[in-house]
Amino acid sequence: MQYFHNDYNEACHPAVLNKLTANMGKQMGGYSEDSACYRAADMIRTLCKNDDLAVHFLVGGTQTNLIVIAAALRPHQAAIGAVTAHINVHETGAIEATGHKVIGLPSEDGKITGEQIQQFVELHYADEAHEHIPQPKLVYLSNPTELGTIYSLAELEEISSVCKKNKLHLFVDGARLGYALAAKGNDVTLADLARLTDVFYIGGTKVGAMFGEAVVISNPAIAEDFRYIMKQRGAMLAKGWLLGLQYEALFEDDLYLRIAQHADNMADKLRDVLTELNVPMLVEGVTNQLFPILPDGVLDKLKENFTFSEQGRVDSTHRAVRFCTSWATKEEAVDALCAELKNNLK
Amino acid sequence: MQYFHNDYNEACHPAVLNKLTANMGKQMGGYSEDSACYRAADMIRTLCKNDDLAVHFLVGGTQTNLIVIAAALRPHQAAIGAVTAHINVHETGAIEATGHKVIGLPSEDGKITGEQIQQFVELHYADEAHEHIPQPKLVYLSNPTELGTIYSLAELEEISSVCKKNKLHLFVDGARLGYALAAKGNDVTLADLARLTDVFYIGGTKVGAMFGEAVVISNPAIAEDFRYIMKQRGAMLAKGWLLGLQYEALFEDDLYLRIAQHADNMADKLRDVLTELNVPMLVEGVTNQLFPILPDGVLDKLKENFTFSEQGRVDSTHRAVRFCTSWATKEEAVDALCAELKNNLK
Amino acid sequence: MQYFHNDYNEACHPAVLNKLTANMGKQMGGYSEDSACYRAADMIRTLCKNDDLAVHFLVGGTQTNLIVIAAALRPHQAAIGAVTAHINVHETGAIEATGHKVIGLPSEDGKITGEQIQQFVELHYADEAHEHIPQPKLVYLSNPTELGTIYSLAELEEISSVCKKNKLHLFVDGARLGYALAAKGNDVTLADLARLTDVFYIGGTKVGAMFGEAVVISNPAIAEDFRYIMKQRGAMLAKGWLLGLQYEALFEDDLYLRIAQHADNMADKLRDVLTELNVPMLVEGVTNQLFPILPDGVLDKLKENFTFSEQGRVDSTHRAVRFCTSWATKEEAVDALCAELKNNLK
Amino acid sequence: MQYFHNDYNEACHPAVLNKLTANMGKQMGGYSEDSACYRAADMIRTLCKNDDLAVHFLVGGTQTNLIVIAAALRPHQAAIGAVTAHINVHETGAIEATGHKVIGLPSEDGKITGEQIQQFVELHYADEAHEHIPQPKLVYLSNPTELGTIYSLAELEEISSVCKKNKLHLFVDGARLGYALAAKGNDVTLADLARLTDVFYIGGTKVGAMFGEAVVISNPAIAEDFRYIMKQRGAMLAKGWLLGLQYEALFEDDLYLRIAQHADNMADKLRDVLTELNVPMLVEGVTNQLFPILPDGVLDKLKENFTFSEQGRVDSTHRAVRFCTSWATKEEAVDALCAELKNNLK
Repeated sequence: MQYFHNDYNEACHPAVLNKLTANMGKQMGGYSEDSACYRAADMIRTLCKNDDLAVHFLVGGTQTNLIVIAAALRPHQAAIGAVTAHINVHETGAIEATGHKVIGLPSEDGKITGEQIQQFVELHYADEAHEHIPQPKLVYLSNPTELGTIYSLAELEEISSVCKKNKLHLFVDGARLGYALAAKGNDVTLADLARLTDVFYIGGTKVGAMFGEAVVISNPAIAEDFRYIMKQRGAMLAKGWLLGLQYEALFEDDLYLRIAQHADNMADKLRDVLTELNVPMLVEGVTNQLFPILPDGVLDKLKENFTFSEQGRVDSTHRAVRFCTSWATKEEAVDALCAELKNNLK
Repeated sequence: MQYFHNDYNEACHPAVLNKLTANMGKQMGGYSEDSACYRAADMIRTLCKNDDLAVHFLVGGTQTNLIVIAAALRPHQAAIGAVTAHINVHETGAIEATGHKVIGLPSEDGKITGEQIQQFVELHYADEAHEHIPQPKLVYLSNPTELGTIYSLAELEEISSVCKKNKLHLFVDGARLGYALAAKGNDVTLADLARLTDVFYIGGTKVGAMFGEAVVISNPAIAEDFRYIMKQRGAMLAKGWLLGLQYEALFEDDLYLRIAQHADNMADKLRDVLTELNVPMLVEGVTNQLFPILPDGVLDKLKENFTFSEQGRVDSTHRAVRFCTSWATKEEAVDALCAELKNNLK
Repeated sequence: MQYFHNDYNEACHPAVLNKLTANMGKQMGGYSEDSACYRAADMIRTLCKNDDLAVHFLVGGTQTNLIVIAAALRPHQAAIGAVTAHINVHETGAIEATGHKVIGLPSEDGKITGEQIQQFVELHYADEAHEHIPQPKLVYLSNPTELGTIYSLAELEEISSVCKKNKLHLFVDGARLGYALAAKGNDVTLADLARLTDVFYIGGTKVGAMFGEAVVISNPAIAEDFRYIMKQRGAMLAKGWLLGLQYEALFEDDLYLRIAQHADNMADKLRDVLTELNVPMLVEGVTNQLFPILPDGVLDKLKENFTFSEQGRVDSTHRAVRFCTSWATKEEAVDALCAELKNNLK
Repeated sequence: MQYFHNDYNEACHPAVLNKLTANMGKQMGGYSEDSACYRAADMIRTLCKNDDLAVHFLVGGTQTNLIVIAAALRPHQAAIGAVTAHINVHETGAIEATGHKVIGLPSEDGKITGEQIQQFVELHYADEAHEHIPQPKLVYLSNPTELGTIYSLAELEEISSVCKKNKLHLFVDGARLGYALAAKGNDVTLADLARLTDVFYIGGTKVGAMFGEAVVISNPAIAEDFRYIMKQRGAMLAKGWLLGLQYEALFEDDLYLRIAQHADNMADKLRDVLTELNVPMLVEGVTNQLFPILPDGVLDKLKENFTFSEQGRVDSTHRAVRFCTSWATKEEAVDALCAELKNNLK
């Protein structure tokens, strides 16, 4: 069986394991106050071209989302995102459990625009009963989005400008950030993200680490006392250096981008075949997730040798599914999948 | 200026004030443990034809909604309602502040159906990632709805049956319940509500009381320790007998229904004129709220003598507004409004 | 039966009822945006000698405490108070339900000192694991305290200075504030409270109103968006003018202080008799609450004609109890109680 | 420098690393739905002699405590524990952040008794204002305690019986459970814990794993939908099999107990020397934590070569400190520490 189910089905890149193994047996300080975390944070600050950034290492994405938002908002404030935003649909109400409403704006491709945000905020304050409605205060973007699309630099600049103008925090969920940075046509860098957002994170779990998300905070109001809130939500790993070491490995020799590039290349290869076969896509993405719409019969056949996830029925004989490549995807597996698709769709 | 802005612009019905005044100076037990609350609760149990109901008196609607839902749900569970549900749009995220997501189902007229609920629950459990999504556990209806429509007995029977089958709690927000019970065509009684729901409330604030909502609970799991949760949320009025006395007044001589009937009659009178004038309605309701779509010029003119609330722009020259009658609406005021409408629309 | 159980067993002072009655039938704006609330807020600002204060009217004490603290704290921050503080012992965990720990400092008489606060904060930051402990951020005082004692101006000045130095918010719960302001030996004014605290409130429920607490906020960070948080917690009364009118009545002709003075005088009369009879007191207070320690037999006898509340067993034959006078206490009732005490203790 | 600061300063036991390394490169199912987790859970059920137990793998202790308590309690309910309980003092208010008060009962040695619990519950319900106080509903014990002491089987039996009688949940925090099970004089087994508690956990982070806590739930009301709540709180590890593998390693060949035994032996060796040197102890424990009271001068000297943590000043010349051994402590390090102590205290 070949896994195209998601991008977290293999433990970690060998270089990450090597780094951990090489540091076994050393005695380290607890709770991320250790040399490995300090080094990794410095590497990130250098990549982001800003020495004043606060950098914290957390374990997983939902945890990171809920802590950032808890740190950023007062009780009556809400997060705004695309209706498809991970925090809106796939985190069991984690944000609501911290007391905040998540407001989903309409989106076909997983993205929202500065204009949408501006209009939403204006409508809020135009309503004379606005005190009876949660106050929009934080904009949540995923890059890449849950649908595999990415934001251009121009789009992020516009959103950032709308946020500044309206005193909204801008938060970018980068659980799969590597796959955006390495995507064909991407023009956004880590330094851009650090400059344009109040807070964003560089996902490790889905991009080569065993686990780990590196939160990068430029807004001092969110950074203040961040470790208290991490501890309160159970997110301060006792052996925090395990996170620091993994990020060191990921940022040595550009590993993070290189392995993300591999995943995107594998996805492009598959995407080309699907295009050649005239398979319609639910959304046209450019990263490691593909959402083809395929006949039920073909999907049944594919299931014998490949895993993938279901996105929903499109019509009485077709379903949309998701194929996901990763840093670990083997080219032979992609070739096998392409061959099987050709066999069944020709 | 004549107020058609809402149904809580006058303090209370004279009979309610008389009851309060007549009991001034008496020394009473605190926190709703007093003879007035006991009598009012008994009156409600009698009207609901069930001696085992728990009855509690709270101060306002948002308070009641958040306490009932906090009492009913475990942390990962969500409330489902129409997208227009008050808890979804006009309570500043009160439910989310207790930790629970509110899920809005599509609705044109403020109502949802048993079939919608059944499908939603089935989709939830059919999703293999359902543990990553808040668990639907409580169905929230408003009767009348925020758009002035009402549920028929058949509709409530169906919804109740779907809820029982799927182990969902059914909660009816009756902030304006009187105006539903007194509406033309209504076939639902208090006893039906007590029989078909797990919990509902009989609104006082908008139907003749100074303030007050009477919560009626048939499900023992929700009733258990309800007073603890009231106290925790700041909803246990020190002088609880002020609530008991007002409900006594409302249920003596059928006052509650009689004054609601008046409001509905006044609304019907206005509705007939709007129909006669071929004014389109945003929603066709039967209770004390009307949502006509009128030309901007007419609305500007009406504003000189009448208050109403804005519902939103419909096209470049028309807006939907809300006119609201109440137990206190004077027939002269309705006549004046009807005359003004005729003058401007003929 | 004569009630000395507490100070909220009678509805309201006649002047308050008159004010409400005189305004029946008027149409008023909802949610405290009305002329009565505006006038009452202005009266309070004048009494507090500060035109910039934010003033909001809430319904009850627990509600007020939880909303002020929710408005003032970030998630990891805690409220500090005396171990006997109302928020620590008698609000069913209302503050914890907003996510914040309440930390009780040792206290014999219901009061804490600036020095205690200073030491506690220093210990917190001296602990290298302080990020694993809730951050002290708000100091909660009750004045009068739950044990009937009051803070002197010098004590409040010192506490306020410690709070400023350590960037702590100072919050004074004035649920019974009138009884402190009118107490023998008091040297604190409303203007002092407004000057020395970030936020405090002037209790109505226990001092002549049917219900109501007037929150006075000088710290803009707490005042910002306060109405959103009121609404979210179910504390924005639809007919807010009922609160405004009551406070107008309380501040006309100095009614608030005059009726509090009466209660304190009645308490002093009873206190003098207890002193004369050599009855030991649990705490020596100066306001409307008295905590004598009396033999079980005497208490049994008193119970036939008087209500009071139990504070706990002191030894095998004595219990501490609480007698509470109020604005409504009749001198005859006090005389009767004094006589009964003399009869039984001589 | 030799670390006696705590028991989580080294990554993991080599057998744990080997197990992880041996499984690199395999494709596994996400979110703990994988063969490694299933096997580890089965091993735990076997050790606990109960096939019906729910077993879940979480990442850290604070996370586990807050999720178990969130799963177990309704909003108005509180957790009771020793005043020294980890949840009361060292988790930045994590439990309060889920809405629940933590109530600390007096304790000198980190333990509480069935009698204390019984009395506390009786006092709660004897108070006529008990609805104004959080309802005691869950008893939290740590075994070993934060002070290194352990519960005997008889003590646990009594506490369990008190809990059953009063319908309280019993929850044992076993963050260091191995060190209790392996302690001299211990008579409690995993099967006892499974039989006597509603829920407990087997700590991995401090006993040989890189990270991980295995939660064992016998009460179906707490087990129901536990994975939803894990996800909601950010505790469902994407690569859950990393936890399963580690627990497999820990329970093969009795590794868990063997390495805990080593730590306890090392502590006993140190304890014997301290006894021989007549060093007083803050608490007499039997597990891997020791709390000697030593002169400032000696501590200054020790600091040159050894790490330890501070417990607080005892008098003007002595402080209590904590020495902590672990599965990784080398006997040479203990010998060196013993020699240094002898040198300085003789």
